[in-house]
Order: sequence, then C-alpha cells, then structure tokens
Amino acid sequence: MKKSLLALALMGAFSGAAFAQSSVTVYGTLDAGITKTTHTTNSAIQEGKRDNNKLGFRGVEDLGSGLKALFHLEIRFESDTGTIEGVSRPLFQGQSRVGLQGGFGTIRAGRALTSLQETSTQFEPWSGMPNQAGFQTDIMVTGYRTALAGSGSDPLGVAGNSGNRFANAIWYNTPVWNGFQLNVNVGSKENNGLSTAIVGRGTVAAPQYPVGAMAGAYPYSVSATYMAPGTTPAWAVYAGTERNATEVKWHSIGAYYRPIPELKLMANYGKQDLGHILAANDGITSWMVGANYNVGPGKFLIGYGQKDPDGQLKTRQFSVGYEYNLSPRTYLYLDLSQKKLPLVSTAIVDTSQNHYALGIHHNF
Amino acid sequence: MKKSLLALALMGAFSGAAFAQSSVTVYGTLDAGITKTTHTTNSAIQEGKRDNNKLGFRGVEDLGSGLKALFHLEIRFESDTGTIEGVSRPLFQGQSRVGLQGGFGTIRAGRALTSLQETSTQFEPWSGMPNQAGFQTDIMVTGYRTALAGSGSDPLGVAGNSGNRFANAIWYNTPVWNGFQLNVNVGSKENNGLSTAIVGRGTVAAPQYPVGAMAGAYPYSVSATYMAPGTTPAWAVYAGTERNATEVKWHSIGAYYRPIPELKLMANYGKQDLGHILAANDGITSWMVGANYNVGPGKFLIGYGQKDPDGQLKTRQFSVGYEYNLSPRTYLYLDLSQKKLPLVSTAIVDTSQNHYALGIHHNF
Amino acid sequence: MKKSLLALALMGAFSGAAFAQSSVTVYGTLDAGITKTTHTTNSAIQEGKRDNNKLGFRGVEDLGSGLKALFHLEIRFESDTGTIEGVSRPLFQGQSRVGLQGGFGTIRAGRALTSLQETSTQFEPWSGMPNQAGFQTDIMVTGYRTALAGSGSDPLGVAGNSGNRFANAIWYNTPVWNGFQLNVNVGSKENNGLSTAIVGRGTVAAPQYPVGAMAGAYPYSVSATYMAPGTTPAWAVYAGTERNATEVKWHSIGAYYRPIPELKLMANYGKQDLGHILAANDGITSWMVGANYNVGPGKFLIGYGQKDPDGQLKTRQFSVGYEYNLSPRTYLYLDLSQKKLPLVSTAIVDTSQNHYALGIHHNF
Repeated sequence: MKKSLLALALMGAFSGAAFAQSSVTVYGTLDAGITKTTHTTNSAIQEGKRDNNKLGFRGVEDLGSGLKALFHLEIRFESDTGTIEGVSRPLFQGQSRVGLQGGFGTIRAGRALTSLQETSTQFEPWSGMPNQAGFQTDIMVTGYRTALAGSGSDPLGVAGNSGNRFANAIWYNTPVWNGFQLNVNVGSKENNGLSTAIVGRGTVAAPQYPVGAMAGAYPYSVSATYMAPGTTPAWAVYAGTERNATEVKWHSIGAYYRPIPELKLMANYGKQDLGHILAANDGITSWMVGANYNVGPGKFLIGYGQKDPDGQLKTRQFSVGYEYNLSPRTYLYLDLSQKKLPLVSTAIVDTSQNHYALGIHHNF
Repeated sequence: MKKSLLALALMGAFSGAAFAQSSVTVYGTLDAGITKTTHTTNSAIQEGKRDNNKLGFRGVEDLGSGLKALFHLEIRFESDTGTIEGVSRPLFQGQSRVGLQGGFGTIRAGRALTSLQETSTQFEPWSGMPNQAGFQTDIMVTGYRTALAGSGSDPLGVAGNSGNRFANAIWYNTPVWNGFQLNVNVGSKENNGLSTAIVGRGTVAAPQYPVGAMAGAYPYSVSATYMAPGTTPAWAVYAGTERNATEVKWHSIGAYYRPIPELKLMANYGKQDLGHILAANDGITSWMVGANYNVGPGKFLIGYGQKDPDGQLKTRQFSVGYEYNLSPRTYLYLDLSQKKLPLVSTAIVDTSQNHYALGIHHNF
Repeated sequence: MKKSLLALALMGAFSGAAFAQSSVTVYGTLDAGITKTTHTTNSAIQEGKRDNNKLGFRGVEDLGSGLKALFHLEIRFESDTGTIEGVSRPLFQGQSRVGLQGGFGTIRAGRALTSLQETSTQFEPWSGMPNQAGFQTDIMVTGYRTALAGSGSDPLGVAGNSGNRFANAIWYNTPVWNGFQLNVNVGSKENNGLSTAIVGRGTVAAPQYPVGAMAGAYPYSVSATYMAPGTTPAWAVYAGTERNATEVKWHSIGAYYRPIPELKLMANYGKQDLGHILAANDGITSWMVGANYNVGPGKFLIGYGQKDPDGQLKTRQFSVGYEYNLSPRTYLYLDLSQKKLPLVSTAIVDTSQNHYALGIHHNF
C-alpha cells in the first residue's frame, strides 16, 4: 500500500516503468574519411563521410497470432563535427516510425524514406550512400536535392530537409506473393515548416506555395518489386512512381542480375516531371549502369550514369570504388570519381570534378 | 604499467570506462495517429500524436543501507516529423534529473514536471496525455499553455517551452506515512532563456519582466496525496499549489474512486491567480469529471470539464475515447471530442471544435 | 525466397540489422548542484554543474590479429535545463570518433578534445572538470575560452563552440614504449561554421579571418607523456604543444608525483602565443600547483594558480574541494574557491569572486 502511493507519486518520473521492458536494440554507423573534390567552391582536403552516420534505436514486440509491433528511431549526424546531419535537420532524420506487421503485411506511420527511395537503393552500386561517387542522390533522383525549391520529396519542409523523405506519412508493404511485393506510401497535406515561399509558377508577390502553404494534393510514393525464384543466377526488377507535395512527379525503373554470387550487375532509368512548378524545361531524364564484384575480403564498385535536364547540359558521372572488409561490420574504402557537370557555381561553369575518398566505415 | 599509461592517454576518450557499468534502461513511447480537428486554423486531416513521444535513459544504483542513486534523461520528439518536441524545446524535454532515494524519501535536482503536475496526471481520464481529447493541458491547468506570456510553469524560459515544468529546480518526495505523501519542488530564480520581454503589469517600454529578468520570488510547487488502505473500493485524494517565476499561482484538488477494479471515477477542481501579471480579469477556475472503464482487452475513457476565465466566455469540453490493448505495451486508440471555446483565432470566434483521432501507442 | 524480398523491401527501414549486433555500451554522467559565485553579473543562488553532463555510446569490435575497431559518440547536455551543452553546441559535443587500434597504436577520426587537452586533464586537481573551482578551463589553458575571438581550439567554428576541441581531425596515439607515449592530432583547414568574422590583425573592413575563411595552416596538437615504472612512489610528466586554425600557439608542461598511494601532487606551466592574431600584448603565461588526498571514503582537492596576460593584471585562483564517495560511481561534493581577476564586466572591475558549490555527481 505504502509502496503504491509512492509509486503513484513517482509515476511521472518513471512512466513506462510499469511496462515489461522490451529488448531495445541500439545500433548505428560511423563513417569518417579524408576526401578531396576538385573544382568545387571548396576543393581543399577535408574530413567527411561516404555513408550517412547513424545512431538508432529499434525494437520488435511479439503480440501473438503472428502480429508484431515495431518501432524505429534513427538519429543522423556528421562524424567530423559531431552535429546533427546537415546541422539543422530533424533529430531523427534517419527515420521515426511505429507500426504493425502481420499476415496482411506491414503498416507504419511517421517519417522515413519514401517507398520508392527505400526500394531503389538496392539497385545502385554504392547502395544509395549519399556521396559524390554514388549515383543515388544526384543522378538517380534526377534533380532531387538540386537547388530548385520544390524539387525534393519534402518540398514544404524546413530548408535543408533531405530530398528523399516524407514526413506525416503512412507506409504499407504487402506480403510477398510469388516474388511480388507492393509498397505504398501516402503523406498528409500538412506543411512541414516551409519558411521561404516557393515561387514556382506564381510570382514573388503571389508565390505558388507561400510560407505555411499546404499541399494541394496528397503526396504519394509507390514501388513494386519482383524477385525471381532461385539463387544462381538471381535477378530482380522494380518500378516506382512518386508525387511530392508540390506535385512534382518522378518515375523510375531498375533491375539487377547476379550471374554468379560474386557479381551483381545493375541498371536504372528515371524521369522527373516538374511541370507543376516550372513553366518550361520541366523534364529531366537519367540512367545509370553499374556493378559490384566481390573478391576475397574485397569488393569492387563501378558505375556510369547521366542526368539530362531539358534545356541544360548533361551531367555525366563515372565512379570506381573498393571496400576492404576487416570484419562483417567494418571496412576501409577508397573511391575515385569523375563528374562532368554544367554548373557548380557562377564562378565554376561546365567543368569536371574529380573526387577522392579514403576512409573507414563501421557498423555497430 | 604500459597499459596504465595508455589508459591514461585514452582516459579522455573513454572517461567513465573505469567505473562499473550500471544497467542503463533504454525505454520510450512512440505514438502516431491520424487526427482531424474542425474549426482550427488547420482543419485538414493530419498525422499527429495522442501522447508525448519519448526516448529515455534511466538507471538506479544501490548504494547500500537502503540508499539509492537514480537518474533519468528523457528525450521528447515528434513522431510525424522526427524533430525534437515542439521543434525547439530542450533535448531532454521529458526530464533531466539526478538524485538520491532512501529512508528520508527522494531528493532530485534538474528539470522535470512540477510536483503538482506530476501528481495531477493520475486524476485525469487521459492520464495527462497532451491531446485535444484530454483535459490536462487546457482545462485542468486553467490557463497554462495559453497564449498569455508568463502564464506557464516556465515563464522565464525560451519561447515554446512547455507550461508544466520547472528548470533549475529541486524535488523532494517524502516517504509514505499511513497513506500520506508530500511532494515539494522549489526552483531557483534564474532566467532560463527568456528572449521576449513579458509586459505583464508594466509597459512595453518598461516591461514587468524584461529579457533576461530573474524571478523576484522563488518558484515552488507542492502536492499532498492520501491513498486509502485496501484495494476495493480504492480511493485517493490530492491537493496542490504552485507559484511560477512570474508569481502566477495555481491551486488544485482532485480525487479518484474505484468502486470495482474495472472502474475509476475522477474529479478535479482548479483555480489560477494571475494577479501578479494582470491588472484585471486575473482569475480562472476550472473543473473536470471523468471515468475509465476496463472491459476485456479494452478501456473506455470519458470526461467533461469547463474552464471559466474572468471576463471571457467559458471553454467546455466533452470527450470519449477507447483503447484496445494488443499487449500490455501496445494499444490502438480512438478519441472523439467536442470543445466549445470563445476564440481560436481572430478569424474563428466562439465556436466548437470536433476532434477525431485514430492511432497506435507503443511503449518500449 | 519470400522472406528475402520482404527483407529487401525493409532493408531501408532496418539497415544495419543484417550485421551481427555489437555490444554498444550506454554510459554517462549526471552532475547537478547548487552554486553561488559572487561579483558576477548573476550572483544569485543557481542550479548548475561541476562536471560535464554526458550521455554516451561506445563500442569495441575485435577484428582478430590484435586489431580492434572502436567508436565513441558522446552527447553533452545541461542537467539543470535539459538542453544540449551551451544550448547550441553540437549534439555529440563530447566526442564523435571512429578508428582502429592495434600494435601500431590507435588512430581515430572525427571531433574530440585535442591531444594536449586530453593529456593535461590528468595533471589538474579537479581532473579538468570545467567549473569555477577547477583550473583547466581558465588558468591552465591560458586564455582559451576567454572572450577573444580566435583564441580557442576551434576558432573557425560556430560561436559558443568549446575552446578545447578539434573538428575535422585525426588522432594518433603511439603504443607505450618503456613508459613513453606520443599523441599526435592534426585537423583539416576546413571552416567549421564561423559566422562572425575574426578581425585579428586585419580591420573590420578586411578582417584577418572573414566569415567562411579556412585555416592558412593545418591545426595540430601534440603531447608526449612518460610514466615511471613501479607504483610507490609513482610519477609522470608530460609536455605538449598546439596550434589552432588561427595559428595561435600554446605550450604546456606538467608533472604529478605520488609519494604514497593516497596523495597526488601536481604542477603545470603553460604559455600561449597569440602573435598571429594580436599586434601587441600577445603572450600569456600561467602556472598551477595542486594536490588530491584520499581519506577513507573522502577525497580532498586543493590548488593555486595564476594566469598572467601581457599588459593586463594577473588572474589568481585558490580552490579547495571535498568529494564524499557513496559508491565508486556516485559522490557528493563541496567546492570553495576564490578568484581575483581584473575584469568581469565593465560594471565589475578588478575584484575577487567567491564560489561555492554543493552537489551530486553520478556516473552510469
């Protein structure tokens, strides 16, 4: 009795204590390296990253009858300065989701990569890692993360928010039927903190999306995958489409093929339609081919791709990389990449950037 | 010997490593749902939360002789966007406290819910959860968290800080004597980051609390509880009083009664005195009645309450809710609530808001 | 087969899950106390800290053949308000590093204390804890953390960043050879977020380090230590030198001597050369002597030191402290300190500050 009143008084302090403790898994990635990229506004040797740096917390609760509750919280940060990713992104930039999994599939709510982005990283030689040598963030997303306001996945969000996530959204993954799976993702129309108006097809005085504007149509992202039965050769294909909160659309298809277990060949084609916010030059197309090849404790990565925006010069990129595995969780890497692009800044026009990176990647 | 010098060199890197590892408990809550509230400035369907979202770290160390050291750090965040709670609140908004527990009671220092708030959440049908259906944050706190500067528990804090916490404070909970317990909480006079002056009973030129002003009197919060012996019927009462850093005062009493284990009836009465910062219309009274009723894996919640500020129309709220437990840690919920209130914004006057929420609540 | 496609779809959600889970250690420090410092701009009783407050995550992975991968992420925060340290410092202000350890020594990359700072904390009676009674942050660093822009270890960083860390840097610790160890630390020339120009030896119109300026020379920090063999008496010496991104230099030597296990005597001498950013009065010297003495569960701390900047009055500080250990992880403390210093603010000139602190320090 006495205990219970004390417990009551302390409940605010220890809320949650009354529940059986779940096995929360603390995990993450720390990646740090020395990089140099020529012909940029800052081409000196720098310390940087090749992969996203993560500190995450996740758990699965068995609810019985095949039903599970799952959650996932992932902090993103910069290893070289200790700040949150991009200095100002959300604390749980990686993802913040909770949901249920069962015979019906998986349904989750929160903020995370869009369904299309989540799928397409598996079809890129650098596994979607956001660095200059990889193809995901510049070539494959065909314009995402460029300077154009409204062109990313979270256009009504805070400036600097990443270009491949939905906030205020729901994710649904079907079960796998004979190798097929469908992933559907729908966002609300909420404004997520836009502080600078998006002029778009409006004017500065009457911007298309003023500060605080909501989406006119529900954002969505859909991807479908098919994986062939058997293991050698193995192959898979995907197709996906996405519409963001400013009604920019993006369509993408890709495939990979493993003739032998050591070799994975990949190809990707994408198309972006910016017609809802641009009056002219509103299309971008892109394609990419690449491969991964495992030799002993090492892995070679190679890729070539192009991005072709209407009315602009193409961007062309060729990259090679090597990973040396010290363990299943830790490797050293070397990347070499050349990118020819029309415009870095008003001072650096139509040139080519050479990129070098040497570092360590550690999962925990 | 060699090891020790190396250890010395690495001590900065691994400080704390020399100490026996305690069993830190990682815990939290993820709550996400679909909500809609009519007649607000944003009445579209949204993704939101019903409860605070938490990621916490806590531990207890047995010091022998019945003495324990305890700490508690709790991150709060928004599940739908991944940001820290309210975008700009402190990282450990939930609480940041350390202290000792023994035969003398519990003493802790840091930042947390005030003693009165910690106690009163147990006498409210939604357990103090800060959503539109619950009564804690609008009705029961009688004016706290309204737009009036100086009216919350942390009035000299950063704009947007929550209205029910003390920073720079000490908490003391007595042991339980024959069912009685006293909880005392005193803050320092420190300014906690106030960046916009509080005019109060001063003028814009000479505000009552200029930027950087300290409290003129120590803030405090006190609550006393009595829990009757026996389990059926069970009942408890509390009374509490609080004075914030701008000398706004608040008095509250409440009770609950459990005639059978499945049913908990609750009532609450509060009064706020804003006379120190308002020259007129400085009083608010409020009351609330409610119940929880458990049926099988479900729990029904119901409540009705009023807030009556001097010189303004009353706010009246009626809410019903249902929780369906999938496990002791996970439930689905549905809330329906109607609130009649005098002013939402200058554009929405004297109307009633209907609120709907459907979501999942997961403790880990 | 079905599982693998589902796994593929969920990989974005659960990246890292495929790797064997390492044993991440969650650790930290919570320190809170009541403090008062006279003759400051705020001399009222406050709640504050004596040590840095930490919540950290670290791990070591055995790679075989004596090789290990190690990482370290450490959040710093204010226990009294729940915010990140200094409100605006990086999330992982404590440190963010990843690296390898083996027969060659230890190499790490990221952000952390400089090598010299990491070493010198072991030669100071308050173990480098950043409070008014300790000598590390004001006396020993001879000017670091003063108001002079450009004088700290991270001068091209965000305003408010701490004065004893390098970002974008590499650390190398040699193995210990017959008691000797060398620690070398080199930073990149990157600007780390400087938002207010450092005038230095330039003019306001043409500051020496404009916003966004890079370092003209690589910052470095080096320390060497020698620890004598045997345990009673025990002794160690160190010498170190550092150059920050604005080419301010700092040289330091120190020693400790343990005639009996209970007693540790310490001495330190430092010199700072600000000639690269100041045209006159560019030197500071400092010295400090102190002791720790253990009696039963208690530990006495005592120290006296001076800082002598060219062309200014000296700062002189005398401090005594007592720690009462409740366990190897938890202690209560009392500090008394007097500091005579030339200038606190324009309103408080050439006076002495008395400092009192009483609190609890808990490692977890």
